[in-house]
Amino acid sequence: MTRVLVTGSAGFVGSHLVERLLGDGHHVVGVDNYLSGQRGNTELFLGHPRFTFIEADVSLGLPYAGERLDWVLHFASPASPPHYQQFPVETLMVGAQGTQNALDLALGHGARFMVASTSEVYGDPQVHPQPEDYWGHVNPNGVRSCYDEAKRYAEAVTMAYHRHHGLDTRIIRIFNTYGPRMRADDGRVVTNFVHQALRGEALTVYGDGSQTRSFQYVDDLVEGIVRLMGVTYHGPVNLGNPDEFTVLEFARLVRDRVGPGLEIVHLEAAQDDPQQRRPDITLARELLGWAPRVPLREGLEATVAAFREAGPPRGPRADGVWAAT
Amino acid sequence: MTRVLVTGSAGFVGSHLVERLLGDGHHVVGVDNYLSGQRGNTELFLGHPRFTFIEADVSLGLPYAGERLDWVLHFASPASPPHYQQFPVETLMVGAQGTQNALDLALGHGARFMVASTSEVYGDPQVHPQPEDYWGHVNPNGVRSCYDEAKRYAEAVTMAYHRHHGLDTRIIRIFNTYGPRMRADDGRVVTNFVHQALRGEALTVYGDGSQTRSFQYVDDLVEGIVRLMGVTYHGPVNLGNPDEFTVLEFARLVRDRVGPGLEIVHLEAAQDDPQQRRPDITLARELLGWAPRVPLREGLEATVAAFREAGPPRGPRADGVWAAT
Repeated sequence: MTRVLVTGSAGFVGSHLVERLLGDGHHVVGVDNYLSGQRGNTELFLGHPRFTFIEADVSLGLPYAGERLDWVLHFASPASPPHYQQFPVETLMVGAQGTQNALDLALGHGARFMVASTSEVYGDPQVHPQPEDYWGHVNPNGVRSCYDEAKRYAEAVTMAYHRHHGLDTRIIRIFNTYGPRMRADDGRVVTNFVHQALRGEALTVYGDGSQTRSFQYVDDLVEGIVRLMGVTYHGPVNLGNPDEFTVLEFARLVRDRVGPGLEIVHLEAAQDDPQQRRPDITLARELLGWAPRVPLREGLEATVAAFREAGPPRGPRADGVWAAT
Repeated sequence: MTRVLVTGSAGFVGSHLVERLLGDGHHVVGVDNYLSGQRGNTELFLGHPRFTFIEADVSLGLPYAGERLDWVLHFASPASPPHYQQFPVETLMVGAQGTQNALDLALGHGARFMVASTSEVYGDPQVHPQPEDYWGHVNPNGVRSCYDEAKRYAEAVTMAYHRHHGLDTRIIRIFNTYGPRMRADDGRVVTNFVHQALRGEALTVYGDGSQTRSFQYVDDLVEGIVRLMGVTYHGPVNLGNPDEFTVLEFARLVRDRVGPGLEIVHLEAAQDDPQQRRPDITLARELLGWAPRVPLREGLEATVAAFREAGPPRGPRADGVWAAT
């Protein structure tokens, strides 16, 4: 049994990770400032005897004064384009100051450390699928750079602590992930399409819809994370589902499942929107014996059911931002 | 007459910038923590009536409490491979926390802001020469990433302040620059070759020497900086000399000038050492009417004279690090 601190514990991925770690018998300390996390995701676990929670902004400090930690898992960050573009400076900070505070906490406790990086470090890739040693194609100062460069920086500072301080570190690169507890205003295709279909609205596709995405069900991701905690490997590891769909195919799948007969309309393509991204998961297969197991139809079923249960979505935000990814 | 705060004022480029700004009639506030800056570069100006100095680590805060600033110029950072690889975490911090502290100071004073970025944001480029809209080819977690990713992050956070807070910002990408007041242990080819030749030693070339470099004399760089302060343009601007030499050609030039008859020996190539880098300066030409004016032979003459005057160099550091770039 170990004691694990999870930053971003009230986020979509963070909350599933907390659930799994509690289920596996660990003590879990959750940390979130609710910038993009949801209070309901903390409330799920507050009654659990092995769960404690600290409301704090990890970019400003990590006020943990409890027993010795075995792991620090840094999962805090806005992750969807409407969120990080609304909070560009906070997004940059949680990648830099936030990662460093989490690294320092791990160092002080003699704990191991994992950072949640992203497929966005590959930017608009010129290599398909993307293996971990592909250096990416990222605009360092474009409108998405507050997220992409924050995560590239998070990898760099993690490796600096590993190389310079001998910290036992892990880096995962998370590809598009979906499932229950995504924010209704996440702004990416899964929530956009499902909520539009549940409301009986037309499904909106940015550009011609020929851009592809691969969709990983959150349980598969969490399984990969837990397996990586069980091995010693310091380079980045892709965790994603290599099954590729065009956005248009996906729109049709959601429509047919949730709202047959709904229209699909096309809007102007978003700036720096990647045309294609697909993980090469050879490394995770060999290192972890891991591969995604949940087919899209099945994961979509669970997600739609959860969204139905959560009640009607709030619709587009007041500022009308619904981004494309 | 304006009041300009320069971080990294005791660095090589910073000290030339201070000298020029004082010469142009401005008030200058220098800031340095001497991690890689040299105290002698502060002493040069301490008697000047318009120069004040604050010894501080800009990554931890900028304790300036004087009159309203018109400009904040963020030039603090280790810049040569042996320095930033000795201080990877400090290098990352001055790109993130340091840049943000400087941005916040500018914001508080209603001042304009400039950040010194670098040709290293292009990494090992696959496009030659490099225009500003080339996104680069950078390893996000390699041994050089503590510098490259820190500077890409510095650009991203600068643009976030520009877009989100309306700050009036400038970004320069500095290509290889040389001149008087470089540190003897800078570790890059100009100081390596000149000091080896002055000591009567063999000149050491990493790899076969076919990798190319372009060398900009520091006065040309400073002229470009001053011109960019006079126009309004927020994207990155390359400042460098497009005249390209192979490292081997350059070694021969130094040998013939300083120590004819000295040997040139080859050592193993360094990790992630870029094979070629040359600025496309079309933008600076059009925007600033700027181009480098000092030919390599002439700049080398001034540099060698200054190095001779500064006395015998200290030789390789105790840890024996002399890097390749």
